[in-house]
Amino acid sequence: MKKQYNIIKIINNKKKKIKDIIVKEFPLKIFINGQEASTLLCSPDKLDYLVIGHLFSENIIESTKEIDLIKINKHDGTVVVELKKKIIPKAKTVYSGCASFYDYKNLKIKKIKNNARVKKEKIIKLMVQFQLKSKLFQETGGVHASALAGSKIIFFTEDIGRHNTIDKIIGYALTKKINLKNKIVLTTGRLSSEMVLKSVKAGIPIVISKSAPTDMAVNLAKKLNVTLIGFARGQRFNVYNNGKNII
Amino acid sequence: MKKQYNIIKIINNKKKKIKDIIVKEFPLKIFINGQEASTLLCSPDKLDYLVIGHLFSENIIESTKEIDLIKINKHDGTVVVELKKKIIPKAKTVYSGCASFYDYKNLKIKKIKNNARVKKEKIIKLMVQFQLKSKLFQETGGVHASALAGSKIIFFTEDIGRHNTIDKIIGYALTKKINLKNKIVLTTGRLSSEMVLKSVKAGIPIVISKSAPTDMAVNLAKKLNVTLIGFARGQRFNVYNNGKNII
Repeated sequence: MKKQYNIIKIINNKKKKIKDIIVKEFPLKIFINGQEASTLLCSPDKLDYLVIGHLFSENIIESTKEIDLIKINKHDGTVVVELKKKIIPKAKTVYSGCASFYDYKNLKIKKIKNNARVKKEKIIKLMVQFQLKSKLFQETGGVHASALAGSKIIFFTEDIGRHNTIDKIIGYALTKKINLKNKIVLTTGRLSSEMVLKSVKAGIPIVISKSAPTDMAVNLAKKLNVTLIGFARGQRFNVYNNGKNII
Repeated sequence: MKKQYNIIKIINNKKKKIKDIIVKEFPLKIFINGQEASTLLCSPDKLDYLVIGHLFSENIIESTKEIDLIKINKHDGTVVVELKKKIIPKAKTVYSGCASFYDYKNLKIKKIKNNARVKKEKIIKLMVQFQLKSKLFQETGGVHASALAGSKIIFFTEDIGRHNTIDKIIGYALTKKINLKNKIVLTTGRLSSEMVLKSVKAGIPIVISKSAPTDMAVNLAKKLNVTLIGFARGQRFNVYNNGKNII
């Protein structure tokens, strides 16, 4: 369920190397009656209940009686389900903690070529500006916010879905033909693999969140050379990758 | 982006009628080249950027040049996209703030037949017990928790996806053949339409969250007779539907 990482913590303008506990994100591929049906991004715990509940919520089963076999293979992240009725799942769809569309084993996303350096003070200043803009959150408590920033905030958006906020940023940047190579994404949302993948696919080298990352987000950041920052609150933040770029 | 509702607020064991601002949840159905492609559950703002970013993230377009037309109809919640390349979207998939699989216009979920009354003190006590169990959140800050409760907590689970936590509860209840008619779901996750739909589909009459609901969640709760409670923190909570059942 969790994993230890060596990270860099910034508090009151000082850099510290610390060990941090990061939650695991686990892709579970479901095969129904021999056919690949969906992939859930989840925490690797109580997976049998997750699969049964998922099948029920998706209207695939009404009770556990309809299931002949559930065989979970934690090693390769698959679950084989055999049902009494001989249905074939319609489409290969990726469900997840939030919606996804990536084939994690065959990523075609290019590594970021960046060594963009950012000052600690700039990150703290941007996050203050960012938080002040979250009017809808202050009123309703029901949305996530994200922003695109350069030396200051260029575009700010709120949405009930944290992935939607990133898509809105990317849509804005494509429309306005903004060079994303030296830009930063700020977000209130937790950093799961998809949040990092969406950003890096658009070419954004730096992702900063108020919230926690998953281990998959950290691993992807390392693989794709993304500068990944979490728990950016007040005078402190954690750097999960490219700590050398924070000066 | 938001809407005003009459709700009941409980503070320090007292009931108050208040007006509350609740964030809107908007289903946006995307048609690509005349074919229904997906439905996004989102906030109804900057929808053009959302659609463009979504198409880019899904590898459907590489730039806005590939788009001949984007026509958003806010009234019926549709967007028509015409692309230069004559692709037909593969599958009808519902994406959302988080993954979904419901046809919102043709719900086949039965109304809850419950008039289960719950004491204010019980809700506050259950939430205290619930929060104490969230060990993984305390360590990592990266998960949601949900629990199934009767007079006390029966089953507790944490997952990086809030929808997964509800599926795990349902899977547990189906496996253990638990009667859900008089049970309660407790969750840390925001109450979007799907959170309510999953619970009510399984027959659970009461849903309580530490976080905010969306307007669609409140409307569904009213339609399906679910007792819906949000912002359950310390000595207070908000009742969005079935306030008469809270005694």
